[in-house]
Amino acid sequence: MDTIIDKTIQANERFAQNFNLGELAMPPARKLAIIACMDARLTVEKFLGLQTGDAHIIRNAGGIVTEDAIRSLIISHHLLGTQEFMIINHTDCGMLTFKDDDLREKLQQETHTDTVAPTVFHSFDKLEVNVRQQIQKIKSHPWIPKHIPVRGFIYDVRTGKLNEVTALSS
Amino acid sequence: MDTIIDKTIQANERFAQNFNLGELAMPPARKLAIIACMDARLTVEKFLGLQTGDAHIIRNAGGIVTEDAIRSLIISHHLLGTQEFMIINHTDCGMLTFKDDDLREKLQQETHTDTVAPTVFHSFDKLEVNVRQQIQKIKSHPWIPKHIPVRGFIYDVRTGKLNEVTALSS
Repeated sequence: MDTIIDKTIQANERFAQNFNLGELAMPPARKLAIIACMDARLTVEKFLGLQTGDAHIIRNAGGIVTEDAIRSLIISHHLLGTQEFMIINHTDCGMLTFKDDDLREKLQQETHTDTVAPTVFHSFDKLEVNVRQQIQKIKSHPWIPKHIPVRGFIYDVRTGKLNEVTALSS
Repeated sequence: MDTIIDKTIQANERFAQNFNLGELAMPPARKLAIIACMDARLTVEKFLGLQTGDAHIIRNAGGIVTEDAIRSLIISHHLLGTQEFMIINHTDCGMLTFKDDDLREKLQQETHTDTVAPTVFHSFDKLEVNVRQQIQKIKSHPWIPKHIPVRGFIYDVRTGKLNEVTALSS
C-alpha cells in the first residue's frame, strides 16, 4: 500500500511534467522574508499573493523567533538581500492549547527518558502579546540592521484575513 | 510609497474577499510533516500537490534538522498526530555558497559586535550527505517514535523534480 509520502511523490511527478517556472534567481525577487507558523491551514504564498521566487518563507511551530529563525533571517538578509521582515501568527493556534511543562512531562513518561533538547516548546497564552515579543526579538538582535522594517500579523484561519499587530503606545 | 509589506497586505485583502476554505481542522489532514529550505524557489505545497490543511510545513535556511525543527516535529506528532516526515533540500542552495566562519567574521566586522547566538549557520558542502545527516538527527532523537518513516529528498529547482536520497548501504 502506498504511504502518504509515496502519494506525495506521485503528485510531484505530475508537477514536474508540467514544470514551467524556468530559471529563477536565488535571491528572493521581492526582497521579503516571512516567519510563519507551520500550521497546515496556512498556505503562506497563497494568502499573501506571492509567486514562487518572491520571498523566503521560514516556518516553525508557532511562528516563533527562535535562535534558528534568527539564523535564517541573517542568511536571508546578509547573503541574499531581503530588506523587510513579516511575522505571521494565526487564530486557533495549537500553541495556545498546551503548557510546556505538561508536554515535557508527557514526553518523559511516554518515552522513559530524562529531559533532552529541546527543553522549551514556546507555547503561549496570548496571541497579540506573543507577536509583539517576536517582533522585539528581531529588532533587538545585534546582527539585524535597525533599518529593516519588522511587522507582525495575525492570520484569521476562518476568514483568510491578515490583521496587523500594532505596537503598544508608550 | 508602498513598501513590499504594504503590497503583500493588499494582496491578502483580495485573497480574503474570495476566501473559500471553510473551517479546516487543526490536525493536518494527510498526517504529514515536512522540513524544507526557506528558499524562495520552493513553493512546497504546490510542488507536492498539497492542499491547504494537509500538512505541517517547517522551513529554515537549508532545511536543517535543528533543535527548533525537532521542537516543531515533536509538537506536530505528539499533539497534532502527524505520522510521516519528509526532509527536502534542493539544488543550487545558498547554504552551499559560504562557510560559517566567513559569515560570522563578516557579521562581527560589519556590526562591531562579538559573536552572539546563533554561533552556527549550518552551511554545508555536499547536498546528499547533508540530507542523510538530517534524517539521522530525527531518527536518533529519543522523543521521535521509531515507527515514523523519515525520508529525505533533493528538489531540483530547474526541473521541479523531487529525487529521493537513499540510505548508504552498510
